[in-house]
Amino acid sequence: MEANREKYAADISSIKEAHERIKPYIHRTPVLTSESLNLMSGRSLFFKCEFFQKGGAFKFRGACNAVLSLDPEQAAKGVVTHSSGNHAAALSLAAKLQGIPAYIVVPKGAPKCKVDNVIRYGGKVIWSESTMSSRETVAAKVLQETGSVLIHPYNDGRIISGQGTIALELLEQIQEIDAIVVPISGGGLISGVALAAKSIKPSIRIIAAEPKGADDAAKSKVAGKIITLPLTNTIADGLRASLGDLTWPVVRDLVDDVITLEDCEIIEAMRMCYEILKVSVEPSGAIGLAAVLSNSFRNNPSWRDCKNIGIVLSGGNVDLGSLWDSFKSSK
Amino acid sequence: MEANREKYAADISSIKEAHERIKPYIHRTPVLTSESLNLMSGRSLFFKCEFFQKGGAFKFRGACNAVLSLDPEQAAKGVVTHSSGNHAAALSLAAKLQGIPAYIVVPKGAPKCKVDNVIRYGGKVIWSESTMSSRETVAAKVLQETGSVLIHPYNDGRIISGQGTIALELLEQIQEIDAIVVPISGGGLISGVALAAKSIKPSIRIIAAEPKGADDAAKSKVAGKIITLPLTNTIADGLRASLGDLTWPVVRDLVDDVITLEDCEIIEAMRMCYEILKVSVEPSGAIGLAAVLSNSFRNNPSWRDCKNIGIVLSGGNVDLGSLWDSFKSSK
Repeated sequence: MEANREKYAADISSIKEAHERIKPYIHRTPVLTSESLNLMSGRSLFFKCEFFQKGGAFKFRGACNAVLSLDPEQAAKGVVTHSSGNHAAALSLAAKLQGIPAYIVVPKGAPKCKVDNVIRYGGKVIWSESTMSSRETVAAKVLQETGSVLIHPYNDGRIISGQGTIALELLEQIQEIDAIVVPISGGGLISGVALAAKSIKPSIRIIAAEPKGADDAAKSKVAGKIITLPLTNTIADGLRASLGDLTWPVVRDLVDDVITLEDCEIIEAMRMCYEILKVSVEPSGAIGLAAVLSNSFRNNPSWRDCKNIGIVLSGGNVDLGSLWDSFKSSK
Repeated sequence: MEANREKYAADISSIKEAHERIKPYIHRTPVLTSESLNLMSGRSLFFKCEFFQKGGAFKFRGACNAVLSLDPEQAAKGVVTHSSGNHAAALSLAAKLQGIPAYIVVPKGAPKCKVDNVIRYGGKVIWSESTMSSRETVAAKVLQETGSVLIHPYNDGRIISGQGTIALELLEQIQEIDAIVVPISGGGLISGVALAAKSIKPSIRIIAAEPKGADDAAKSKVAGKIITLPLTNTIADGLRASLGDLTWPVVRDLVDDVITLEDCEIIEAMRMCYEILKVSVEPSGAIGLAAVLSNSFRNNPSWRDCKNIGIVLSGGNVDLGSLWDSFKSSK
């Protein structure tokens, strides 16, 4: 695995370096357990609480690592990204801590609470249309005008390394974990987690959880190449991105399975997070719980020996209004 | 303070004994902090997360201590209580762990999720009218028929001692705390916390947080005797009870102030718990945060030197439906 840096955009060394770099700034998030959810799932579940991370999502780990990796001259001109929310807020916060500007291209329709976070952390919001091409065009323009550096939400080794620090912590906190379930969108989170976890514990299984309405990773794994979807349709606003050329090789090689979930399963898992775990998790954050409770996971003999399962509850930025609307509509 | 047992129904020794007794069964709940809420309040706030306690509220501490204090012959006939919810569920759970029956007199109108918890934990539900006299009459009838033991929700030394274990833990977790803000209803929680905290750290201030629509403790402190209200009106369904003859002396002597809050302030604090702390807290549980953010607390020179404030987030059992209705109605 030490040779992974040749194959992939990150490896256990870059992840450990990232951890040293960002440790003073991030929260070492706690791990929660619930007897009720253990009974329901028939396993021991260990919830890694990234919704407690600064900015309300794991994204601060990667953003912080990226910003701290810049050379000072480069950094002074600022950073730019396009994002539906959590990466944008995280990058704004990381930039603020370093005293440099963050230019955030936000697609129309991004959740209000996430845009509010960007503004609260001092990010400069520049609106684009919601398509990826509009986001990229606007971002390119900002780059040119400001001389700032693009920090991609996931297709970047510094970001992947930062997100991988979750696995370092989780395996320190709970040594007996034999599988980790991770939401998948662009693949930055799961790539980092897979590279770190399989380096530390080669037998560990890495399982992706993906909305059926944005199942490009599942389709890509079947096809053996990156498949992008013409459109996505899911309540999980953080899971609509497509795999990148730096995350795909890791997903291809190190992710053992992709479980796809209906929106109603995601919403039910989110409700359980509120009512049983007593924590506020956004739809994208709750999808890992939905996965372990799904029939396709429970009935799959491959996972029968996975007794101790880590679940990354990746974020907790949710508008209470839209949350309640989704509960009502799912009934 | 060691002589408190002569004056009060509990003291530091009974609280430490309770802690030894219940430790194997309870969660040592974590303490959360938030830079945003520190900024907003101008203090360092330390949130003791009793909504993570078994049964979703601090009540399990007292109920567990009471059940474990019974002699086996007495215990075999079971326990009975009347309660709007969290004590009922907690007693059911404590009884279940000991394999004895729990008879729960539940007033009509109790929150559904709390009644569901009673049933989930195996308590036998017996309905009464919502008045205290109807609750007591029905409970007396059950006592007579079953030979079981009444475990009062708060007016009981074993309960007060159990709830006091929160302060033991909190002051171990954060030594520098100089005030603790505690919701007040019947006074069991705040009595235990005050007795423990002031014994360990005599300079500590104990501040009660009470809904304006159920302000019997505030009125009692002013009158110097127990005042009961003919009726109460507050969204905080767990804070409608009146002080008892065992809790009143502690509240009279050891509680430094009572801060009363409007329902809209409680709801706003609950929203902050969801959106900033990312935790699911019921109205009664969030009132302590409302208190430290209130003008009557901020502008009171007595509390100016309280820099490090513990806040007991006492419970997290909330129907998401009623939660959302209350958010809408408060706008």
